[in-house]
Order: sequence, then C-alpha cells, then structure tokens
Amino acid sequence: MLDVPPAATHHPGLDALLLHHEVDKFNAAYAAALDEQRLADWVEMFTEDAFYVVISRENADKGMPVGLIYCDSKAMIHDRAFALEKTAMFAPRYLRHIIGNLQVLGEEERGAIRARANYVVIQVLYDRPDAKLHQVGVYHDVFRRVDGVLKLAERRCIYDNLLVDNALCLPV
Amino acid sequence: MLDVPPAATHHPGLDALLLHHEVDKFNAAYAAALDEQRLADWVEMFTEDAFYVVISRENADKGMPVGLIYCDSKAMIHDRAFALEKTAMFAPRYLRHIIGNLQVLGEEERGAIRARANYVVIQVLYDRPDAKLHQVGVYHDVFRRVDGVLKLAERRCIYDNLLVDNALCLPV
Amino acid sequence: MLDVPPAATHHPGLDALLLHHEVDKFNAAYAAALDEQRLADWVEMFTEDAFYVVISRENADKGMPVGLIYCDSKAMIHDRAFALEKTAMFAPRYLRHIIGNLQVLGEEERGAIRARANYVVIQVLYDRPDAKLHQVGVYHDVFRRVDGVLKLAERRCIYDNLLVDNALCLPV
Repeated sequence: MLDVPPAATHHPGLDALLLHHEVDKFNAAYAAALDEQRLADWVEMFTEDAFYVVISRENADKGMPVGLIYCDSKAMIHDRAFALEKTAMFAPRYLRHIIGNLQVLGEEERGAIRARANYVVIQVLYDRPDAKLHQVGVYHDVFRRVDGVLKLAERRCIYDNLLVDNALCLPV
Repeated sequence: MLDVPPAATHHPGLDALLLHHEVDKFNAAYAAALDEQRLADWVEMFTEDAFYVVISRENADKGMPVGLIYCDSKAMIHDRAFALEKTAMFAPRYLRHIIGNLQVLGEEERGAIRARANYVVIQVLYDRPDAKLHQVGVYHDVFRRVDGVLKLAERRCIYDNLLVDNALCLPV
Repeated sequence: MLDVPPAATHHPGLDALLLHHEVDKFNAAYAAALDEQRLADWVEMFTEDAFYVVISRENADKGMPVGLIYCDSKAMIHDRAFALEKTAMFAPRYLRHIIGNLQVLGEEERGAIRARANYVVIQVLYDRPDAKLHQVGVYHDVFRRVDGVLKLAERRCIYDNLLVDNALCLPV
C-alpha cells in the first residue's frame, strides 16, 4: 500500500480545501454507485480491512454495536453485495442518495482521515408516484489512501429512522 | 461565442476544483431561479441550441426518449417557461430544489463539460403543512462557456418518480 | 472584535472559493450542532447583536416580519435555546438537517458576507419508521468574522411549510 497524497499547494487553506473536495468527490461517486446498482464498484470503495456497519441512532447513542448490517472486512462487504444482487437489486425499487453537510474532521496519524456527512436515501417503488424517505442519518467515516486513491477504512451509517416496509437490508 | 475559461492556477487539482465550484455555483443559481419562479432567468441559463428533457428513469433505461418535457432549443425552453408563467406559476404551490452529489465527469473536445448531480424537488401547497417529495432524480448535463459564462448545452432530467397529483409539467 | 480573514492566494477565483468553503463548513457545523442537540454550541455561532428569525415564505413575500421565532440578540437566542433544552430537547424526536445550494452573494463593506442556502429539516419520532419533512426553506444570511472566525450576524429562515404536528418552535 502506497500513501500518495495529491500535490500540496503550501497554502494551508487550499490544502484543506483540496482534501475536502477529494472526500466530497468520493461521496458523490459512492452515491452514484449505489443509485445505479453498481455493487461491484461499491465494494471496491472499501479497504481490505474495512469496517462497515448500519446501526440505529438509539443503539449508537447507547454504545450498543448491534446493527442492521455488520461487516468487518471487504470480503464480508463483498458477500453482502452479492447476496443482495441475487435478491434486492432486482426488486422493483429505485434508491437515490443525497449526501450533504460534509465535515472533514482532520487527518490523523498514519494518514487516516476522519469525516462525517449527513445522508438521505429516497426510495421509489416502480410505477408508484410517491417517493419516500427510506433512511435518514449520518456517516461517521475514516478514509485511507490506497495507491493514492481514497478508500473507506470505516463507515458507520447511523440512521435516525428505517422505513419498515423495506424488508431488505440495503447498503446505504 | 467566446470560450474564456477562468485563469488557470497551473495546479491540476486546483484547476479541477475551480471547475467543480463553477458548476456547483451554476446549479445553486439554477435552483434559486426555479425556486423563486424567475423563469426568464432560468431560460437564460441555456445555450441557444440547448437540449432539455425531463424523462422517467424507466424510459431512459430502455433508451426510449419519450419524456414529460422535450425541448431542443432555447426558443422551445422559452415558450415552455412562458406557457407556465400563464398557468402553473400562479398556481398555489411552492417548489424547493436540493441539488447534491455533483460529479464533474470531464472536459471534452470543444470545451464541453460533462457533469451529473442528484436532485430533489420538494413541493408545498399553500397553507398546507406537509411538504412532499415532488420529484427525485438525476441531471445528466453538458455545459459550455458562452462569453466566459457557463451555460447548459444539455440537461437530461431523469426522474425516479413523479408525484401524480401535480398535473402540470413544471421544469426541474 | 478583530477581522482576520484567512491568507489570500492572490487568485480571485481561489479567494472566492476559499470563502465559499468557509461558509459551507460553517453550515455543516451549524447543522451538526442542531442535529446533535448541542444548543450551547449553536448559540455560539451567532454574533452578540445577531438577528435570527424563522418566518413563513408567505409573510416574507408580503414584507410582514411576524415570525415563528424572533430574536434580535445573542442573549435572546440563548434564552430561546435554554427554554428549549428544558422542553423540546427531551421530547422523543430526532432532527436531521440537509443544507444545500449554498450561494455566497458577496462581501460587503465592513466585512459583511451575504449568503443564502436551501435547507431541509427531517424529523423522526422515536421508534417510528417514517421520517417526515419537518421544514423546507431558505436561509438568508449575513456573516461576519469575530476574531477571525465566521459568525452569523443575521439568519432569516424562510420556510415554505411547517409541519403542524410539531407544536414546538424548534430552531432550524
């Protein structure tokens, strides 16, 4: 694993801005991969040892790690995605992510970049006119560069709500 | 038509960031024009030969170009807007756009800039407390500079849903 | 009060971009403070003489200043927040802000920065699966730097709708 950050500008504000933009672009690409049901691309956005969980705000506030989805490696994330591809991805629904309010909280030792962002996932059932707020919450993230490219080493998706008419645990 | 890009910084990351910001500002101004019902301003955001369509995701996925709105010139967009001004704009509803997840996909030959972004349009009927997700989808765009100012040469609005209680085909 | 802007880059586009980013970061931090119910932090984001109102679009359009919330100093905002902390903050609901479509409209005399942004506040009642659009609207803002840090000298929150099942006037 190489850690190749982009060229520095030697202006602290600009370097912070470039990093913010890099994470912002990552999140837009992440949302597009899920919205377009390109799950193989989605899996590739995680590091080999990535931690990915989807957990309720109530449980997160209580420090209870029990979640809807729990993966502690890219292999588990991959299995999850492929299981979905055989089921949910062909179910008649569209999803659309809006990721906003990005905060890059800092670059830590060993190149880990902590960030957070709010997310809204809107679900539309085929041939139905009404869109619904499927899931609303916050991402708590740790990014790392792998060969110069940002990857998610950790994404904890903490949702305020979960629409119960969706029996499937879709990734967000 | 002059093609005057902003001053280059000679730092590839910063130049990409400036372009991203330029498109982001465009989208915020575009949303404000529609939200504030300034349709004449909205029309001016397109090139003379602009292509503007609003089409369902289902039809877009099948390669069927049949849409809710179809305009292949600024003149048609203008007619559309003025027809609306005589009808829908005085109908008792507010619209509010959220445009997010912008991706600038690249600058092509002849200065064409391809981009995409997710959008949510929220509708509120006057004196009604509940806001509704009127339309949720993705913009597939081509921008060009006219006299140094970004304009939309193409915007394909591909919606996941369309709230049927809205008989009018409002621009998004 | 010191007015210490960040280091200039001497590139007009970059300086505008840095300012935009500074306001964008402010809004993300503002949303996080409210979403996480850190009301004391929220109060600190205003200047001493700040003007903060929450008003309907209908009244704003008519030039009627009567609003849901009216504060013309940080002291009043503080009182408002603490009154809430004794009531609403322990009510069983989560709020989640999405702030988008930021437009920095310019830097005026005496360092005042005018901006606007659209906002959506989504409400979730505890143990309920459905998230609702609590409030949708636009912020009209004036920022000032206090000791080099951006603060809100004015935030007018103009909402398209207000969900009536919420009797409490929560800050947005």
